[in-house]
Amino acid sequence: MEEKDISQAVVSRLPRYLRYLADLKDEGIERISSQELSKRMHVTASQIRQDLNHFGGFGQQGYGYNVESLYLEIAKILGLDHQHYLVIIGAGNLGQALLNYMNFARRGFIFKGIFDSNPQLHGMKIRDMEVKPMEELKDFICENNIDIAVLTIPKASAVAVTEQLIECKIKAIWNFAHVDLAVPEDVQVENVHLSDSLMKLSYNIRRNR
Amino acid sequence: MEEKDISQAVVSRLPRYLRYLADLKDEGIERISSQELSKRMHVTASQIRQDLNHFGGFGQQGYGYNVESLYLEIAKILGLDHQHYLVIIGAGNLGQALLNYMNFARRGFIFKGIFDSNPQLHGMKIRDMEVKPMEELKDFICENNIDIAVLTIPKASAVAVTEQLIECKIKAIWNFAHVDLAVPEDVQVENVHLSDSLMKLSYNIRRNR
Repeated sequence: MEEKDISQAVVSRLPRYLRYLADLKDEGIERISSQELSKRMHVTASQIRQDLNHFGGFGQQGYGYNVESLYLEIAKILGLDHQHYLVIIGAGNLGQALLNYMNFARRGFIFKGIFDSNPQLHGMKIRDMEVKPMEELKDFICENNIDIAVLTIPKASAVAVTEQLIECKIKAIWNFAHVDLAVPEDVQVENVHLSDSLMKLSYNIRRNR
Repeated sequence: MEEKDISQAVVSRLPRYLRYLADLKDEGIERISSQELSKRMHVTASQIRQDLNHFGGFGQQGYGYNVESLYLEIAKILGLDHQHYLVIIGAGNLGQALLNYMNFARRGFIFKGIFDSNPQLHGMKIRDMEVKPMEELKDFICENNIDIAVLTIPKASAVAVTEQLIECKIKAIWNFAHVDLAVPEDVQVENVHLSDSLMKLSYNIRRNR
């Protein structure tokens, strides 16, 4: 199935489709019309049809979507039919929380190592994984086919670490540091700026007052 | 300064402006043109002017923006001139990580309590704050003027807890649970779906292959 060029806005919506389809599967529902899906997801049926049309369209007139095959197809589009290997850089609370979160592994995101510059943390075990010194990061990434580096370190160190990661030809950075990273075009970055999200909430509270 | 109706897309960009302006302040820069800001932020100068025009526009032809006053104005628009009181529901790794993250307090987001349904966690101290049982949640929210509830609990319990929060007239929910919450119009919800963000990264890795 040939994909057209898909906007990041559409890509952003795919995980949500996947989540609803997983729920439908759990409920034993085998097929669903765009109208029914629209009611559940609170988006228009026309948006659903448009979004899914990007991938050639899976629906059949009068039949609707086959839940299982639509689920599998979206999972494949999202690259979830491959495993991804990750390292976490920064063994603080957030790094530990991510390492302990089991649901990522179910989706094929496998944590292979956790690193920190603080010598006091080296050797500490989190989920049977020892915190390693930053000096070992580069070799580890090459030797373990790491795709994704997760940055849970402060802003100041994130920039320097990113340079190392680029030298290691990392494919992607999942960035929790509160800074925009400068990377070459072939390195993917996805930012989770928690403060930004909280400020948006604050804005909406204020508007609603 | 009168605000027009602002799209959520623009609102989403405001925290990033604020971040760059804070950096400029730290560097001792007092004014900046939209062109210079555009170079730093990697967005067009025209987008910057458009975005900031929503708030009546602060720039002066040939002078540029006054960094300090633009910073203060955006902070005010984002509601950061008020303090917000938060509770965390779910004292697992993620809840603890958020509670331990000091930068939120600097922005006026003050954590007042942390709750969990697991009796084994009750009384445990995190940053001098005792984990409280869920039974005390409702009274606590009323008595402490809590604006924002942070949900760091699994999907299944998030829906039931949200119903309680609505009864307490909570103003906003910062939702880390992997589910869409049904709330009345006057309750603001901001979702942080970590898996979704990781899947987007996976999509972009695959596209780049």
